[in-house]
Amino acid sequence: MIRHFTHLSDLSPGELLALADAGLALKAAPPRSAPLAGKSVAFCFMNPSLRTQVSSAVAAASLGAHPLTLTLGGGAGGTWGMETVEGVVMDGAAAEHLKEAVPVLGRYCAALGLRSFPSAESWAEDKREPALTAFRKYSTVPVINLESATGHPCQALADLMTIRERMEPSGKNFLLAWAPHVKALPMAVANSAVEMAAMAGMNVTIARPEGYDLDADVMARVKASCDARGRTVSVTSDVMSAYEGQHVVYAKSWGPIAPYGAAPAADPDFRAKWIVSGAKMRRTDSALFLHCLPVRRNLVVADEVLDGPWSAVVDEAENRLHAAKAVLLDLLAPGARTAAASSRRHAR
Amino acid sequence: MIRHFTHLSDLSPGELLALADAGLALKAAPPRSAPLAGKSVAFCFMNPSLRTQVSSAVAAASLGAHPLTLTLGGGAGGTWGMETVEGVVMDGAAAEHLKEAVPVLGRYCAALGLRSFPSAESWAEDKREPALTAFRKYSTVPVINLESATGHPCQALADLMTIRERMEPSGKNFLLAWAPHVKALPMAVANSAVEMAAMAGMNVTIARPEGYDLDADVMARVKASCDARGRTVSVTSDVMSAYEGQHVVYAKSWGPIAPYGAAPAADPDFRAKWIVSGAKMRRTDSALFLHCLPVRRNLVVADEVLDGPWSAVVDEAENRLHAAKAVLLDLLAPGARTAAASSRRHAR
Amino acid sequence: MIRHFTHLSDLSPGELLALADAGLALKAAPPRSAPLAGKSVAFCFMNPSLRTQVSSAVAAASLGAHPLTLTLGGGAGGTWGMETVEGVVMDGAAAEHLKEAVPVLGRYCAALGLRSFPSAESWAEDKREPALTAFRKYSTVPVINLESATGHPCQALADLMTIRERMEPSGKNFLLAWAPHVKALPMAVANSAVEMAAMAGMNVTIARPEGYDLDADVMARVKASCDARGRTVSVTSDVMSAYEGQHVVYAKSWGPIAPYGAAPAADPDFRAKWIVSGAKMRRTDSALFLHCLPVRRNLVVADEVLDGPWSAVVDEAENRLHAAKAVLLDLLAPGARTAAASSRRHAR
Repeated sequence: MIRHFTHLSDLSPGELLALADAGLALKAAPPRSAPLAGKSVAFCFMNPSLRTQVSSAVAAASLGAHPLTLTLGGGAGGTWGMETVEGVVMDGAAAEHLKEAVPVLGRYCAALGLRSFPSAESWAEDKREPALTAFRKYSTVPVINLESATGHPCQALADLMTIRERMEPSGKNFLLAWAPHVKALPMAVANSAVEMAAMAGMNVTIARPEGYDLDADVMARVKASCDARGRTVSVTSDVMSAYEGQHVVYAKSWGPIAPYGAAPAADPDFRAKWIVSGAKMRRTDSALFLHCLPVRRNLVVADEVLDGPWSAVVDEAENRLHAAKAVLLDLLAPGARTAAASSRRHAR
Repeated sequence: MIRHFTHLSDLSPGELLALADAGLALKAAPPRSAPLAGKSVAFCFMNPSLRTQVSSAVAAASLGAHPLTLTLGGGAGGTWGMETVEGVVMDGAAAEHLKEAVPVLGRYCAALGLRSFPSAESWAEDKREPALTAFRKYSTVPVINLESATGHPCQALADLMTIRERMEPSGKNFLLAWAPHVKALPMAVANSAVEMAAMAGMNVTIARPEGYDLDADVMARVKASCDARGRTVSVTSDVMSAYEGQHVVYAKSWGPIAPYGAAPAADPDFRAKWIVSGAKMRRTDSALFLHCLPVRRNLVVADEVLDGPWSAVVDEAENRLHAAKAVLLDLLAPGARTAAASSRRHAR
Repeated sequence: MIRHFTHLSDLSPGELLALADAGLALKAAPPRSAPLAGKSVAFCFMNPSLRTQVSSAVAAASLGAHPLTLTLGGGAGGTWGMETVEGVVMDGAAAEHLKEAVPVLGRYCAALGLRSFPSAESWAEDKREPALTAFRKYSTVPVINLESATGHPCQALADLMTIRERMEPSGKNFLLAWAPHVKALPMAVANSAVEMAAMAGMNVTIARPEGYDLDADVMARVKASCDARGRTVSVTSDVMSAYEGQHVVYAKSWGPIAPYGAAPAADPDFRAKWIVSGAKMRRTDSALFLHCLPVRRNLVVADEVLDGPWSAVVDEAENRLHAAKAVLLDLLAPGARTAAASSRRHAR
């Protein structure tokens, strides 16, 4: 059976921590050889990307592989519009079915990455993750999720590395802080952040406006992880109190499940209430500030925070590179990863 | 004189078969060294691509070369609009003449690939292949045709490899089966498929609706090849009978030469008549099913065929990779190719 | 302090000449090792590019580095819209601030290139070069200017190499010849061409229509360079006389500073007066003809010139490759450059 890296829920907490350790070991000392020499890896994007695109390509190249960045979908400079549904008569816009495209890419490449954002039209449909599901179903080589509708596991791995560089997460307090925005953003990063924190043994608080709860399946996994370790989970709209005693503040905007795709309120009081500000950060236990980037300054988070002592967002982004190396080695050269991660302390 | 790989008509049948053998030898055993180390190769696309883009880049990288994928034409992320006509006053949309661009690329790269689809406005003009002709005229390094208006020789080479993996083509029966579509597609793949089959010594049948004949020059070459080997050529609109006794069924939709660019009929009976179905395939001599991809399922060909025992489309797509390696080595390191193809049986 | 390669004014004349010599040495003999092995370099484009894109990537790859070509800005296949102004509330189109994006790229890559054309709306604003200035300000790794509003130093370096391959520039005569166009083009190449010529000790003449003067700061630097070496600077609209006695003719169209962004006149007499023609070139001292490309034939320059004995535009474009190698080595492996340029004759 092919191993993929697409959802945190496929990993045990020990496996996630071991991958984070492998990433940190690769950050400290790159592999001396080129463990992926002779292999090509295609990173397929249906949406824009900066960190994911560059960190994936640089990670692959640094391990000796040949990285390809592909724009998946119609248009000049791209490939073809892609169909995901089986059995349909393809007389619409899509010229190619993933049932062909994915196995074909697997003949050329040793692994495939996919970024496929939600459509923001139907959460029920988006939650099925049609493109990623098709990649998993049809691929004959490992698939890496570069952000789908429900999660962003590469980001969560880098987040965990960034926390572990500064503290032992087990028993510490993690706040997911909803933030204002001009439009409804995907929930993927928020989902993966709280899943990761729960798997790492942290107490999880989510501060969000009424109506902005995360998907029930995600919350059930978070609760199960926390319960198993004797940690707490709380969800609140009392934003000022939520910051108290936190060790990690993870800011993220996301749109509501219902009405799905609706932009958050733009009124200044609402924005002022929910922006991550210096005043709020000063209520924490000198918390680390994390955000996946890109971030809209002074809308999601104040300059004072991003430019202040709390912020680790550039380190966090750098860790995407080392996390990508760890994932690639885990999938394509597991022996090499084990060697690189010989310092890891977590058993599966 | 620079050797290019742009049209099957530049090759003898023996040369084509030798290249196919070289491709199969490279599939069986990649070269141990990096015969193209230190060379860059630019693959220029004026149109979308998946297999061609990825197989070209992976082939070049696997031989040690540095592949570049370029979007040729205007727009962000691209290059400049390109002029092909000599002597004009360039006061229109095109900012650069291929008379400069092609020699310049040849100073940077050891070979140049070009994908340039027809405009679908005038067959007389498209048939001149202005961009590819300019590449051949101005280039100081080998040019590879990655699909032009009249042909797709890299595809035909992979097709021949796929046939030869399963049968000795000489004397077998090859059906080019026209298929429905939502728009008028280029004739390039269809042209190269029948030219290849004729060069490989197969009997050629073309099943197409009235008004969908291929270009007379292509048909003349097919007839000459078949005549020279004592093979038959037939063109029919009796689609059900056409499948009988076939060893290879090659499905492809294309638009008519007149009225040029007109979309095929959309009526259900017409589509049902021409789609490649299981019922039709069962009339063959257990034929191999080929298609260049991308393919519109249940419009061009039924799921039953693509997912059934006849289909070799993913193998065929994989062979694009090994065909590309054979072409690159033939043009850039002919000694290396000869060594790789030491098992070949066909003299020129 | 990080060394960048963004403006000719950061270099002494000796440093510029030494870089040109290093480029010529790299053209004569590529480095035997891979001095940039293990490094990635990102070339970021906010505008189209052919020569710059390909020469940068090939230069990096030829030195053992892993080149990435990034489209910076919104849209499918690209990254995110980028903000450059500090302190703003980012509730508009830009999703990311260069204050994050640039340091993040610096964690992945050993150097960053940037192409950012002027907006053509306000010269005062364009002259500040917001994107390039932000790259310089926020980057923790060397920045290479791949053409900004005020200059194109990589082009000027290649231009100087092309001149030096044919003559010792000091004391020779250099004509910057304004040329017709269908729209207002940036002044960057024109600026860098005259700055380079002045730094190389040439007498500088600029032939342009009234109203097309270059920026006063550029002209002041040109005058200071020429004065220091006892060379002359003249600006004229007497186009026929301007060609007399020239050793280098550098053609370029650019738009006026006021009204900024206005297209040049399209009337045939005006175009005939300013086009670089064979008749004009025959007035020179067998001058070398240079243009950065892309060039609009028979609008900017006549076929007779581009295809005649004067033209070195393809050699000039090739030298972009070797210039890029010299710049990359100078910034990332200065010891390697010194070795490569051991033959250089110019002290700083």
